[in-house]
Amino acid sequence: MFTKILLRLFLCVWFCRALPSVAQTTIVNKPIERWGLYEVALAGPSSGNPFTDVQLTAEFSSGDKHITVTGFYDGNGTYKIRFMPSEIGKWSYRTVSNAKQLAGKSGSFVCITPSESNHGPVNVWNTYNFQYANGKPYYPFGTTAYAWTNQPELVQEQTLATLKKAPFNKIRMCVFPKTYSYVEEEPTMYAYEEKSRTQGPNGTIRHEWDFTRFNPAFFQHLEKRIADLARLNIEADLIIFHPYDKGRWGFDNMGMKNDLFYIKYLVARLSAYQNVWWSMANEFDYIKTKPRDAWDVYSKTVVDADPYHHLCSIHNGSDYYDNWKPYFTHVSIQNGSTVDDFGRAVLLRDAYRKPVIYDEVCYEGNLPQRWGHLSPEEMTEAFWQGIIAGTYVTHGETYRTPGDTIFWAEGGKLHGQSPSRIGFLRNLLEQEPGPLELADPWKDHRTSQADSSHYLIYFGKQMQSEWLFNLPKKGAPAAGTVFKAELIDTWNMTITPISDTFRLTDVKDYRVYDDKMQKIRLPMRPYLAIRLTQVKQ
Amino acid sequence: MFTKILLRLFLCVWFCRALPSVAQTTIVNKPIERWGLYEVALAGPSSGNPFTDVQLTAEFSSGDKHITVTGFYDGNGTYKIRFMPSEIGKWSYRTVSNAKQLAGKSGSFVCITPSESNHGPVNVWNTYNFQYANGKPYYPFGTTAYAWTNQPELVQEQTLATLKKAPFNKIRMCVFPKTYSYVEEEPTMYAYEEKSRTQGPNGTIRHEWDFTRFNPAFFQHLEKRIADLARLNIEADLIIFHPYDKGRWGFDNMGMKNDLFYIKYLVARLSAYQNVWWSMANEFDYIKTKPRDAWDVYSKTVVDADPYHHLCSIHNGSDYYDNWKPYFTHVSIQNGSTVDDFGRAVLLRDAYRKPVIYDEVCYEGNLPQRWGHLSPEEMTEAFWQGIIAGTYVTHGETYRTPGDTIFWAEGGKLHGQSPSRIGFLRNLLEQEPGPLELADPWKDHRTSQADSSHYLIYFGKQMQSEWLFNLPKKGAPAAGTVFKAELIDTWNMTITPISDTFRLTDVKDYRVYDDKMQKIRLPMRPYLAIRLTQVKQ
Repeated sequence: MFTKILLRLFLCVWFCRALPSVAQTTIVNKPIERWGLYEVALAGPSSGNPFTDVQLTAEFSSGDKHITVTGFYDGNGTYKIRFMPSEIGKWSYRTVSNAKQLAGKSGSFVCITPSESNHGPVNVWNTYNFQYANGKPYYPFGTTAYAWTNQPELVQEQTLATLKKAPFNKIRMCVFPKTYSYVEEEPTMYAYEEKSRTQGPNGTIRHEWDFTRFNPAFFQHLEKRIADLARLNIEADLIIFHPYDKGRWGFDNMGMKNDLFYIKYLVARLSAYQNVWWSMANEFDYIKTKPRDAWDVYSKTVVDADPYHHLCSIHNGSDYYDNWKPYFTHVSIQNGSTVDDFGRAVLLRDAYRKPVIYDEVCYEGNLPQRWGHLSPEEMTEAFWQGIIAGTYVTHGETYRTPGDTIFWAEGGKLHGQSPSRIGFLRNLLEQEPGPLELADPWKDHRTSQADSSHYLIYFGKQMQSEWLFNLPKKGAPAAGTVFKAELIDTWNMTITPISDTFRLTDVKDYRVYDDKMQKIRLPMRPYLAIRLTQVKQ
Repeated sequence: MFTKILLRLFLCVWFCRALPSVAQTTIVNKPIERWGLYEVALAGPSSGNPFTDVQLTAEFSSGDKHITVTGFYDGNGTYKIRFMPSEIGKWSYRTVSNAKQLAGKSGSFVCITPSESNHGPVNVWNTYNFQYANGKPYYPFGTTAYAWTNQPELVQEQTLATLKKAPFNKIRMCVFPKTYSYVEEEPTMYAYEEKSRTQGPNGTIRHEWDFTRFNPAFFQHLEKRIADLARLNIEADLIIFHPYDKGRWGFDNMGMKNDLFYIKYLVARLSAYQNVWWSMANEFDYIKTKPRDAWDVYSKTVVDADPYHHLCSIHNGSDYYDNWKPYFTHVSIQNGSTVDDFGRAVLLRDAYRKPVIYDEVCYEGNLPQRWGHLSPEEMTEAFWQGIIAGTYVTHGETYRTPGDTIFWAEGGKLHGQSPSRIGFLRNLLEQEPGPLELADPWKDHRTSQADSSHYLIYFGKQMQSEWLFNLPKKGAPAAGTVFKAELIDTWNMTITPISDTFRLTDVKDYRVYDDKMQKIRLPMRPYLAIRLTQVKQ
């Protein structure tokens, strides 16, 4: 009887930002917010190998909607099923399992209107952009801390404190630990059960893993961090594989069977978290143990296993993957040259016809390596070059300071000067009525518009003492329309109103001008922009 | 008996450059060069509608090679089957037809070693480049004369005379006539039988066509011109559909059934010509009568019907097509901004992982339209920007001169100053041991190399008084390697040897230098380049 009670126990977990962590709340049948996380815990077999022996799924139904999700073994005889309801109303479920204890279990809950800060998962919107499930635009302003969840707890807490004050709403992060220049820490937990540990001749530790048995504590911890990020409104761009293992742990070289087993377990655990994005790999082409074709198999496995179709991409080293393939919702590019001058970022957007995020464009820092010493001005300009072209850019920081961690891999504190400027740009973009794009993309790489009433013109490194008011005829409003202007210093983060207004002429040779051919005086400083807003009359 | 003799008669036609035209030679059983054109002519039914009623194919066999080709009706009771043998040796064929007169005909010929000027059809080579079937590299240096075969005969002859002296080895040309600014001529022949012709209220002619009956004379003429081009070693990049009809003839608006019927007839007639490339469309997205999906159907039809797998691409207006699709052997892009500054051309190459030809980058000319008034310097620089980035660029000329045709659409004479400079670049490239590509494509957009012994460094519009000898470490040879240098003036077409030689240092911060840190003095002129060649010691 006690077993029966235990079996009927399920943990309903609010995933909304007001609550501390997934693993804590246990109020039975509490309503779940739309896009929140509902969790069922069931007692089941703990003998044999529960990871490989037991199959468990549940069908969740509401009206004529039916969604099948896969459960997973969470250790200590406990199995879990997680579900993210996308529709308000009553949902019920029923389990299917090859284990008698787990089969035919059922239950229900009510899904309610989400709280104000819960916008749902992010989806692709209008070919090149993103929005939350509730329709609010989402402009990715990401940062990078590859192995932050594999650092000491204190550093992880510091990372969260840093992110709380930073302007970023996405973070690129790996599941597995990283070994690389400036990143040498041994993690405190591993994703797998360790079969044995031996010490090599030069003191290096050789681990032997049981790739058929996961370590639930490792994943519980990862989930806690993903929930922490959700509370900060930060999307977790989760990197499933990466090449920064180099034989130290062997997680990049488990073979296809174990890779697929890992992918399915990961997706079963995490897909009900609204802020998860799947990044199939960082620098996929540098993972020499996996042939190029394997990424089709892996990507398809993720997409097939994820009932919510979270955003999914694959990130390159030197060679781009086939980003047009249907598994990939958007394009995640490494190539700093795309955003270090005008006219480049838009080219890949046009080619792929998907949202493009330049997820690695070198990092602000002081490393000798050329990928690790962008000036803060360069990092900031990269964001502007991406944004005006209707694409997005991701930040990373590689300052090596005595006694401190290096944020790009380990998290910790930020030391750079670009984050505040990136936040300034983010505010500007969020004030626009929609995403920007170049008005005349083949001929004018500076003039961006949200619509025919809202322009942002960026000058980058080019300094000039004045700007003749002129706009492309493409996307311009009718002659007679009046604009006000503001001078923006993107580095000093100032917005200075211009006292004149400007009244459009008819088109003259592909451009429109102010009817008095007015100019705006510019200070001789780089990184300026002009914002134009139509004056309603 | 006479009929029987007639039936057995087949016309074997040399396609090699030494012979004047496809339609002339009639020596029975004369050997055919490898990649030459073998033609069988058979008498068959002329009643009913021979275009729709009669099916005719032939299987050509040589050893264990079997290739099925489709025949076509060529008017006056004559049916033809054309075949391009790709292997030396004896070939035999046997026909299959639903018409008794055409069924079960057989014959044979011997395929021999090609003459020196016959390199065979062009194929993709090594992901980003092209070569002829005989292994000779092919670097596309194309030009544009969209409707040249639909102009008066005298103009066509003038076009051929112009091309004979020009540096171009590819031409973009349409099957159907064109109506557009500066192009108003009514062609002398049409692709279809005309059912009726009426005059509209304002004098415009309204044609009514029988889209089930082709006009063989139109296609015979087109073939004659394609053979003329072959003799000049020029590839015919044949545009199957285009939007420049605007209701005048209706060839852009025949409906899918007639479109497919036309495609199959065209491919049956032309695929045995070694210098044919299929361009599915010019500015496909401006042909508003065909939905985007239709291009998959059309492209697949071409590829399935062409037993030789000629090069096939689709050319865009504003929106790129899905160039990664398997029908497309290479990428044919319109976008002038890709080659008017450094660092752009390579981006689409990396994205598509196919050869990229920037087939429309605006034209050298004097039109008021911005697509029609590149300076000759800009047209020349576009070629350099493309070539150093491992891509290719196509020329077009839009000078409007009194009493003369406009080359870009009609052919005729060339007046511009870029062709000789393009020829100079073509010579330089053909002197290299292989195609160029950027040595360090994300960080150095000027330094191109054919291999670690051959560099071409281009300065474009940037003028500087000296150049410190330095190369990227990527792709550089070992320290101690010695180079000689030449200063190239790409506009004045001069090559000036530099008297010093340069000995490489070890790598210093991603670059290698001359061991005496020598510089090369540069004249203060734009459009310079430096050629470096390893000195064997």
